Amino acid sequence: MCGIIGIYGNPEAATLAYLGLYAQQHRGQEGAGIVSMDGAVVHRHMGEGLVSEVYHDPADLKRLRGTSAIGHTRYSTTGGLDTKNVGPLLFNVRNEPVSIAHNGNLVNLTALRSKLQAEGAIFQTTTDTELLVHLLARGPEEALADRLPRALEQVEGAYSLLILSPEGLLVARDPHGWRPLAIGKLKETWVLASETCALDLIGAEELREVEPGEILVIDGKGLRTVTHLPPGQLAHCIFEYIYFSRPDSRIYGANVDKMRRRLGNALAREAPAPTADIVIAVPDSSNTAAIGYAQESGLRHDIGLIRNHYVGRSFIRPQQDLRDLTVKLKFNPVRGVLEGKEVVVVDDSIVRGTTMRSLVKLLRQAGVKKVHVRVSSPPIHHSCYFGLDFPTSEELIAGTRTSAAIATFLGVDSLAYLSMAGMLASMDHDPGHFCTACFSGEYPVEIHDVPRKDMFETSSSPASVELPAG
Amino acid sequence: MCGIIGIYGNPEAATLAYLGLYAQQHRGQEGAGIVSMDGAVVHRHMGEGLVSEVYHDPADLKRLRGTSAIGHTRYSTTGGLDTKNVGPLLFNVRNEPVSIAHNGNLVNLTALRSKLQAEGAIFQTTTDTELLVHLLARGPEEALADRLPRALEQVEGAYSLLILSPEGLLVARDPHGWRPLAIGKLKETWVLASETCALDLIGAEELREVEPGEILVIDGKGLRTVTHLPPGQLAHCIFEYIYFSRPDSRIYGANVDKMRRRLGNALAREAPAPTADIVIAVPDSSNTAAIGYAQESGLRHDIGLIRNHYVGRSFIRPQQDLRDLTVKLKFNPVRGVLEGKEVVVVDDSIVRGTTMRSLVKLLRQAGVKKVHVRVSSPPIHHSCYFGLDFPTSEELIAGTRTSAAIATFLGVDSLAYLSMAGMLASMDHDPGHFCTACFSGEYPVEIHDVPRKDMFETSSSPASVELPAG
Amino acid sequence: MCGIIGIYGNPEAATLAYLGLYAQQHRGQEGAGIVSMDGAVVHRHMGEGLVSEVYHDPADLKRLRGTSAIGHTRYSTTGGLDTKNVGPLLFNVRNEPVSIAHNGNLVNLTALRSKLQAEGAIFQTTTDTELLVHLLARGPEEALADRLPRALEQVEGAYSLLILSPEGLLVARDPHGWRPLAIGKLKETWVLASETCALDLIGAEELREVEPGEILVIDGKGLRTVTHLPPGQLAHCIFEYIYFSRPDSRIYGANVDKMRRRLGNALAREAPAPTADIVIAVPDSSNTAAIGYAQESGLRHDIGLIRNHYVGRSFIRPQQDLRDLTVKLKFNPVRGVLEGKEVVVVDDSIVRGTTMRSLVKLLRQAGVKKVHVRVSSPPIHHSCYFGLDFPTSEELIAGTRTSAAIATFLGVDSLAYLSMAGMLASMDHDPGHFCTACFSGEYPVEIHDVPRKDMFETSSSPASVELPAG
Amino acid sequence: MCGIIGIYGNPEAATLAYLGLYAQQHRGQEGAGIVSMDGAVVHRHMGEGLVSEVYHDPADLKRLRGTSAIGHTRYSTTGGLDTKNVGPLLFNVRNEPVSIAHNGNLVNLTALRSKLQAEGAIFQTTTDTELLVHLLARGPEEALADRLPRALEQVEGAYSLLILSPEGLLVARDPHGWRPLAIGKLKETWVLASETCALDLIGAEELREVEPGEILVIDGKGLRTVTHLPPGQLAHCIFEYIYFSRPDSRIYGANVDKMRRRLGNALAREAPAPTADIVIAVPDSSNTAAIGYAQESGLRHDIGLIRNHYVGRSFIRPQQDLRDLTVKLKFNPVRGVLEGKEVVVVDDSIVRGTTMRSLVKLLRQAGVKKVHVRVSSPPIHHSCYFGLDFPTSEELIAGTRTSAAIATFLGVDSLAYLSMAGMLASMDHDPGHFCTACFSGEYPVEIHDVPRKDMFETSSSPASVELPAG
Repeated sequence: MCGIIGIYGNPEAATLAYLGLYAQQHRGQEGAGIVSMDGAVVHRHMGEGLVSEVYHDPADLKRLRGTSAIGHTRYSTTGGLDTKNVGPLLFNVRNEPVSIAHNGNLVNLTALRSKLQAEGAIFQTTTDTELLVHLLARGPEEALADRLPRALEQVEGAYSLLILSPEGLLVARDPHGWRPLAIGKLKETWVLASETCALDLIGAEELREVEPGEILVIDGKGLRTVTHLPPGQLAHCIFEYIYFSRPDSRIYGANVDKMRRRLGNALAREAPAPTADIVIAVPDSSNTAAIGYAQESGLRHDIGLIRNHYVGRSFIRPQQDLRDLTVKLKFNPVRGVLEGKEVVVVDDSIVRGTTMRSLVKLLRQAGVKKVHVRVSSPPIHHSCYFGLDFPTSEELIAGTRTSAAIATFLGVDSLAYLSMAGMLASMDHDPGHFCTACFSGEYPVEIHDVPRKDMFETSSSPASVELPAG
Repeated sequence: MCGIIGIYGNPEAATLAYLGLYAQQHRGQEGAGIVSMDGAVVHRHMGEGLVSEVYHDPADLKRLRGTSAIGHTRYSTTGGLDTKNVGPLLFNVRNEPVSIAHNGNLVNLTALRSKLQAEGAIFQTTTDTELLVHLLARGPEEALADRLPRALEQVEGAYSLLILSPEGLLVARDPHGWRPLAIGKLKETWVLASETCALDLIGAEELREVEPGEILVIDGKGLRTVTHLPPGQLAHCIFEYIYFSRPDSRIYGANVDKMRRRLGNALAREAPAPTADIVIAVPDSSNTAAIGYAQESGLRHDIGLIRNHYVGRSFIRPQQDLRDLTVKLKFNPVRGVLEGKEVVVVDDSIVRGTTMRSLVKLLRQAGVKKVHVRVSSPPIHHSCYFGLDFPTSEELIAGTRTSAAIATFLGVDSLAYLSMAGMLASMDHDPGHFCTACFSGEYPVEIHDVPRKDMFETSSSPASVELPAG
Repeated sequence: MCGIIGIYGNPEAATLAYLGLYAQQHRGQEGAGIVSMDGAVVHRHMGEGLVSEVYHDPADLKRLRGTSAIGHTRYSTTGGLDTKNVGPLLFNVRNEPVSIAHNGNLVNLTALRSKLQAEGAIFQTTTDTELLVHLLARGPEEALADRLPRALEQVEGAYSLLILSPEGLLVARDPHGWRPLAIGKLKETWVLASETCALDLIGAEELREVEPGEILVIDGKGLRTVTHLPPGQLAHCIFEYIYFSRPDSRIYGANVDKMRRRLGNALAREAPAPTADIVIAVPDSSNTAAIGYAQESGLRHDIGLIRNHYVGRSFIRPQQDLRDLTVKLKFNPVRGVLEGKEVVVVDDSIVRGTTMRSLVKLLRQAGVKKVHVRVSSPPIHHSCYFGLDFPTSEELIAGTRTSAAIATFLGVDSLAYLSMAGMLASMDHDPGHFCTACFSGEYPVEIHDVPRKDMFETSSSPASVELPAG
Repeated sequence: MCGIIGIYGNPEAATLAYLGLYAQQHRGQEGAGIVSMDGAVVHRHMGEGLVSEVYHDPADLKRLRGTSAIGHTRYSTTGGLDTKNVGPLLFNVRNEPVSIAHNGNLVNLTALRSKLQAEGAIFQTTTDTELLVHLLARGPEEALADRLPRALEQVEGAYSLLILSPEGLLVARDPHGWRPLAIGKLKETWVLASETCALDLIGAEELREVEPGEILVIDGKGLRTVTHLPPGQLAHCIFEYIYFSRPDSRIYGANVDKMRRRLGNALAREAPAPTADIVIAVPDSSNTAAIGYAQESGLRHDIGLIRNHYVGRSFIRPQQDLRDLTVKLKFNPVRGVLEGKEVVVVDDSIVRGTTMRSLVKLLRQAGVKKVHVRVSSPPIHHSCYFGLDFPTSEELIAGTRTSAAIATFLGVDSLAYLSMAGMLASMDHDPGHFCTACFSGEYPVEIHDVPRKDMFETSSSPASVELPAG
């Protein structure tokens, strides 16, 4: 998953983009980048790591002059973890700079890439995003805005796109509406963001979402719709509500926190735990669902696990065996709350199950008498090809196991998932508006190739570059 | 405040120290360092920033060979924010390496430092800790352990100390017991830590606290008490229970979480808010007190503020005025929870009041009808000279204002602090065991000089050093 | 100008390439890079600055595994001073790595680049070299070796080329033979180098030069000529003999030192200075010509200027006016040698004249009575489009001025250049074998566009990249 | 050896100091540093490597504000190669900054250091220079200038000193006058430098040398002599003339170039080589002596060896055996000059003999018929304890071998050294003014301890410091 942000018409465009990335840090923590446009001059600063790591030096932002900018926080799906894959990507198309920020994932890469290479195209990255740029570089039309519709008609999959060039800011969303993309305004400044929490931080007002299949351009003359791509089946990612988006965002027209609380309510109705003493969350993503569960069930909500927020991306482990160290680093149980209790542990989803398994052991060591795990979404049986980095079915704990087998693996006294029907009934939209492929296996479009992150990596060590000391 | 950790008798001493710093990151986020002892060879790696930033490269830990190590997370009280002030400090005393990690603050620096300088002493840092080392460097006795008691008799203030040298690991705590210091054991390995949460992460069992005034040595022959300093009035810092320590730690023989919940309970009894709809915490340090308040009052507890944990140490601000940006970066209100409600906001303490003031505005913007602020400790009227970095009385909001004036400043509908009596009655210990000077102004020892962080800074720019590129 | 090196068939290919770059450092001091090929895996390390700066860490060379490698020292002609322009360039062509090192300069860039861009080509650098790779990426043939001849037929200008791919090492030289390129062998290892001094350092024996227009391939089956391009007029750069190559190299089949001494001899015959006391060189490039002058004239040769070799690429200047500081930093006159003397100063060439002017002032300050400047080549009237970074005619001191005017500008007592005839008569080859365009203005091929270094720079600030701390 | 520079009374003091270090780079290439004094505020920037490496960023110089500054280029004699040993050293003495730059070496370290440590002194470096500062920190007098004479009376050995503090610039030279130290003036600015070449570059006029044993102070009232230390036997280092100083410097009142040429003349008279065809130097330090030899002997001088000036401090070697690579990297023979000739090779001195041995092989490979080595100083039999980093007698080739054995080792046809008498007769001063201990073994003072570079290193790995990314 990734977060994107676009700013048009502000003398501090890059700084507002930085704020927008900051608010959307949860959508991608591997890298961050901003490209600004200052007339026909383009500036770029990007790096691996958190936004605060990439932009620790104010001078780096100051150099990003110009009144428009796009930004990207990266979470790799296609394209390895290589600096050159950190967005926004920047290309020289017909001697003009073109920069692109992309949230989503394409699913017909292989054939398209081979075709382009046979024609002489030289690829610079291993991302799916670059393919869009090669398509954009072709065609007789002068303006990018005129070449963009035909380029997009050739690709399939999920994309919310921001394209910055001297022409202006191009905006597009795939016809299925897989990933959110909101339009906001702060006085005269246009703001585009994956989630509305970015608009909130900047102080921009939300106008509407970009419509599925809509192509927009923002330039000196304002914002206008260029065209709509041929419509497709709606496929909003329901996992954005369950886990991915921030609870204080609005996406697809509804408040995430509200949906998440309803999932907890529904879970309490479907899978009560009447003998339990307290309900605790696996912090932080399950906090709201746990409160929903507690409120609906009447059980007491408490804080039984404290999350250590200092865990960096890299952690150095001792060689000697310290039991359950990984989970202990992240969560510490509060013995005073847990000792002697029968506890409902609410989690939003279970992917591989290994973290929950260690967590259950930790809870038992803290004196918990009985552990009832309640999951506020159905079992994940299938991979996602549209932007979430789920493992293969073989690695998903629910990919091959029954709930009973999972309960045994986790070592819990009881385990229950929210049902598909329960999940869909909690939403504001019709069930047909959502992509639920990770639960159901029903993919809204055909998957031509099973993408792997490294599918286009040539066997090269990352180029190492010595910059001058100065 | 600072966190310290000592390991003796483990082939991975430095890595265990690293884990111990990790668990105690909340006690100091300005810098971190570890010194290990490998026979008579000493190794050191330290830096500014979080533990995960200072030790991102496993090679840095690997170089810290040896079976004993001490570590320090820094939060500056005396001595400016300069790398050379990051602990553990390392000195060459009579051609042997001596390293020292210190939690606390001395209060008779000026006279001692002048006396030593007149005798020819050349100081390398501006910390109070170095003074101890100059005292240790004097005296006819051969062993450090024999010189330490006389050195400590000359200083006054708060100190929990770890001193590593080829002799072994020396441990000392001031006679007032200001700061905690626990002794633990993991099989044959001795572990010393400010808080027991560090022992938990490492998997060590807590044996006991170092006694006030006790001097210990750990060497090849095991652990033994060298001597006790002349006893002083007990002065455990009560603020460790209120705010500083981690809720899952045990200090002074009692569980922090339990004390903190009781403070919330007492607050609910003393200052109810019967018309309120919900109780919310200012996350994360007030979470437990808020639950205590909710449980005692019978009001519903909810999550009304979400904390952004990605806020780095440095944040780059736009020049245009974005209202309440600082607080918005840290906290985002959950409108669905707050809108139209009368809300009790529980905080553990209020220092300057500016954050709470912005927070109140943010809550009102999210639709809160009435805001009742409840503080789970008394008003802070006075500075701390024993390790907490409070501002002067003039800058403390309660230093010069009545509660009514503070309520007006904050813009709240009601404000109440826990009483001194209520706070002390919540504890497991007698009131006389605590230092409550920040509330009462009654300092357990005479303050000879009013220390400032920069009191011994010579006017020098930090030396900049060019290391070779390799 | 640039220096290139290729190694094929040696387990330490990259280290030998490094030695080869080292020996050819004088051919390019802006940047250096090596690409190695380890089966189908490619490794690259490059940077700005001297070879010793780019490869200060042995680990950087160690990572360049594989039995073949190419290297490049950069001196920019086309393409700005940007790390991404430092060679060898590396591209992904049809999912295979292709790396290219180029000495020379193309002269029909603009039309070709526009044509390729109209077809959708996206350029990654602003070098002329990349154009060759886009031509190579097109065409139905499977093997690069088969596509290379057609690619080269489309370009015009000077090129000595090394192309490394999983196929092997491709080698080519333009039909005019503008730049040197020698083939050597060290046991089973093939070595290609701009100058033979690189072969000498490695210990390889020179076999022959690559012939003008020859395309070679070296692979597991050995070295073989693929084809010859249609022949063109020979155009060996005579300036390689005058200034550019190292005196201990052999190029175009003759020893540089020998040619340079003969230029000094001829100069002494054409422009004697019979009243002079001593002959001194402008060190180091004119040392040999000065000795040639002294020997032919019978005047005494002495060391009147000492060169400071510590002058780095960047020098920090005071704001106060220190007279002739720039030249003083580079050269210091030896007063004991110069005082009271009438001196012949031999230089190999004069470009802008500013350095010589300051030098003359410095000599006079050291007590020189009379200064006779003698230049061992004709006046430079015209720009070079084939790899030398001469300024425009307007900036060349001889571009618009007579010798008398130059003498006045320099402040000398007499000035003489070697004649065109004298220069050509000093060579081992027929006059028709040389490009003398910088002196005569007769360019061997039509100059379609007047290249500027920055002709293809988009207006972008160099992308700044934050790498993770580790 | 080291070079030192002091500037007093100039708004660009640090930049002038930088120029002075630049000119004296040959005196120390391991590290460089400058300390400036801006009122009572001190600034420091130092690093390992060449001046141009340490000061590549103009901002680093700009930060060194103030009107006085001292600088140091380091070549380690006592104290290992550790950044903290790079000068000028900076200490906090009685809450005032005191910085010191030292050229020379003390010879009664051990006893003094032990005595100070027993009194409680804590050493920060392992340099001999720090000892002086600990002595300076003691004593009842208020002013450093008043404490300095007694401090210096306690030490023995070679020192030219610059001490910068808020009091002003203190200057001292040992009573033997071992190392040079010149006083110059540029308008109102005082300039102190090891060699006059630094005055020349800055544009300052030489006034005189600091006298042996003289202590000076420069402050707002100008320059004045504080006192003279009790006189000692004069002991100017004669090796400064032979090799160490720059040929364009004046030291001890005479021109280095003139002395060096006379050494060559004397060598030609003592050890002619009448059958030789040419005389060549081992560049660059022997150039002047070689010309002196040629002029006196009437033999033709030529350039037979070209020195590669790009050899960095670190060079990465291949594992495969490439014969004589080290010498080949540094020198390349000019075959055209050497082939078939009988050659006199003039060198200024031979230390270990290994370089000359490889060089002779290289000359033979280039076709030299006969090699006559002539050395413009006597054989070096003994170590230097006064600032030159000679190896022990065992490692000096002349320490244990006769000239005949050395000739065999080198593989030459003849070998001759200049005689002691010939050397001394070439000088402008009486023989009794010089220290010739490295030739004669007659040390002007008693050597109390045989210093080793690492004599005071504790066994610690260099502290590694992580600075924040910004």
